[in-house]
Amino acid sequence: MNSMNVVSPRQVAAGLSEFWSPRVLAEIDDAYVKCARLHGEFTWHAHDHEDELFFVLAGTLRIELAERTVELREGELFVVPKGVRHKPVAEEECLVLLVERKSTQHTGDEVSPLTRSIAEQLGG
Amino acid sequence: MNSMNVVSPRQVAAGLSEFWSPRVLAEIDDAYVKCARLHGEFTWHAHDHEDELFFVLAGTLRIELAERTVELREGELFVVPKGVRHKPVAEEECLVLLVERKSTQHTGDEVSPLTRSIAEQLGG
Repeated sequence: MNSMNVVSPRQVAAGLSEFWSPRVLAEIDDAYVKCARLHGEFTWHAHDHEDELFFVLAGTLRIELAERTVELREGELFVVPKGVRHKPVAEEECLVLLVERKSTQHTGDEVSPLTRSIAEQLGG
Repeated sequence: MNSMNVVSPRQVAAGLSEFWSPRVLAEIDDAYVKCARLHGEFTWHAHDHEDELFFVLAGTLRIELAERTVELREGELFVVPKGVRHKPVAEEECLVLLVERKSTQHTGDEVSPLTRSIAEQLGG
């Protein structure tokens, strides 16, 4: 991560070896900008205290919410408000940009084999 | 603005009538997500207390900084750290996504004919 460099989030995301394992690209005050490579189904979870922005860089992302489902195509964004349970699903490989406060836990209060710490998201 | 809707920032930006006049699309806690349509030169300014993310949705953006210049192509992002004087320049029309804390003043401490209030950025 180096916020004084120009970064192509799509390029970084495409190079990630693991699905659902975000990589921190930059910080904006108390928030991180991340990218991730998604395929399959993620865990149902909520972030009680943080909103979460999804912006689709490539592919299509479905976000299942308690009361409805939204579909994001390439170039579209959606903010999951704090406290709202959600489950991202990528039927085919999808690359996303994420913006969320630094305190955000990857899978909220849930712990799953997919859970990644902030240290892991900053790593490598 | 409605953060519970799916939004295409590129589409919204392309429809803006005024250059350099950002439109708020969503909020992420204490930050706004905005888009803007840029052409020509903006004002030299700094935000003493806020970092500012630029992500290029279409076209190319040059950001002149005190000590160097960065060029962002479509799909690339850059964070101007707080306190760093900068001047965005778009030789040709360029569409951008911006993320910055709600307290961020459009042209920092400078006031120019280009300056837009948050109310204007939220408007219509």
